[in-house]
Amino acid sequence: MNIFICGLGLIGGSLAKSISVRTMHTVIGYDTDKETCESALACNAIRKIGTTDDLKDADLVIVALYPSATVEFVKENLAKFKENAILVDTCGIKTEVCKALGEAVKGTSIRFIGGHPMAGVERSGFDHSFASLFDGASMILCPEHCSDCVAVQKVSEFFGDIGFGRITISTADHHDKVIAFTSQLAHVVSSAYVHGEYATDHKGFSAGSFKDMTRVARLNADMWTELFFQNAENLSTVTGELIDNLSKFKNALDTGNRDAMHTLLADGNDRKIKSENI
Amino acid sequence: MNIFICGLGLIGGSLAKSISVRTMHTVIGYDTDKETCESALACNAIRKIGTTDDLKDADLVIVALYPSATVEFVKENLAKFKENAILVDTCGIKTEVCKALGEAVKGTSIRFIGGHPMAGVERSGFDHSFASLFDGASMILCPEHCSDCVAVQKVSEFFGDIGFGRITISTADHHDKVIAFTSQLAHVVSSAYVHGEYATDHKGFSAGSFKDMTRVARLNADMWTELFFQNAENLSTVTGELIDNLSKFKNALDTGNRDAMHTLLADGNDRKIKSENI
Repeated sequence: MNIFICGLGLIGGSLAKSISVRTMHTVIGYDTDKETCESALACNAIRKIGTTDDLKDADLVIVALYPSATVEFVKENLAKFKENAILVDTCGIKTEVCKALGEAVKGTSIRFIGGHPMAGVERSGFDHSFASLFDGASMILCPEHCSDCVAVQKVSEFFGDIGFGRITISTADHHDKVIAFTSQLAHVVSSAYVHGEYATDHKGFSAGSFKDMTRVARLNADMWTELFFQNAENLSTVTGELIDNLSKFKNALDTGNRDAMHTLLADGNDRKIKSENI
Repeated sequence: MNIFICGLGLIGGSLAKSISVRTMHTVIGYDTDKETCESALACNAIRKIGTTDDLKDADLVIVALYPSATVEFVKENLAKFKENAILVDTCGIKTEVCKALGEAVKGTSIRFIGGHPMAGVERSGFDHSFASLFDGASMILCPEHCSDCVAVQKVSEFFGDIGFGRITISTADHHDKVIAFTSQLAHVVSSAYVHGEYATDHKGFSAGSFKDMTRVARLNADMWTELFFQNAENLSTVTGELIDNLSKFKNALDTGNRDAMHTLLADGNDRKIKSENI
């Protein structure tokens, strides 16, 4: 099929590379940055540098932009889409985006399925994209605005073909609640952690635990600010819960309560083992 | 030289394996667990299963036990040590241990140097030990109770020989302040994090950031409780600071202050990059 990818950053670029390397589909790449387009064409990640006029030939449109830009692009260009085209976004939050895109495609033949590829690295842009970024990862699909089961099946197979290890079907609401905890909070904590005094003065005094704890503090502040505020309530809730849990550890220390600390650590150990075996 | 290693767990076992593989030194292993000793002998990690009587032949004694057990072992057996032997412990906290051992060796010929190998994995016991555990890691030495520079130099070279990438000389006090932040707090946060509701229900909704954030929640609760309470004041301070920093993120979310959030994230990104370039 013809696949139109809008946005050739880390996610869009990696999708393009994986599709071009692993399938016979034709990728048309679209990005407002001319150099990025040329780079993508030069390395055969895309077959053609597209314009929005090429949307008329695309069986599948993947939009890999920030949430607000994703909604904007679709609204502006929906009239150019091919009849019965499938539209998938890749935003890290789903409720607001799915609502807006669901409304946009209402009454048209376009079949919209929300998407969130659960992979990333702490770099951005096409230059850091690579074909195996999604290997073994989960592709979350939120098909609540798509009543066409065949399209959902087709999209699921497609993402399996390009390396994803599992397809996770979810509602946008459930997605945003869990993602607030598993991904957004981890970025908040990493970022808050490196605000500590010794974060820039740890040479010789650190090992894997510090490195892993702070890995994702290296982030794109523009993108994550937008993602956080599209999921502010859920993220605030889980941040508050973590603060409460940290306070229990601090309280055990301050009151010299070794039993309480031991119980917290032992429970944490049990829960971590359980979290790996689900 | 003859090296007596007391405690053949993850750290003592890995030291024994590295020494035996990479140097011509003779390792005498000592552990209260008979099976561990036999296993260490069978795989040539040690040359001999020792008794405390073998301390009389040891040029270097490495004690790789929990803090309280380390102090206990040295106090009980110091009279058996060879004249001018060098003693190194491997405890993760240094102020209390160095003070106790410094006092113990006072007036004797024994040269005590506090030690903390900055490496580990989220497993314990001899069965998980391996020769390359310390490759490239920092070996922190706290020589404040040793006035013999030659001994410090000798020990530094020795740890370099068995794989450590750098030797970091520190006071016990500075060590405990920084380690509270770089290591102990990371364990507190990982453990607190997995107390969250979705920690055991994230299948399909998690990727590297959750995995890295919670890696060290898998820990030995007995050991870490002891380590935390030997450094309670420092750990409480940095835990409180992190709670304050997390509250800034939460506050930005709750008040809809995008600028404040962007600044926090951008500063975090800058500090993370700086932390990697020191």
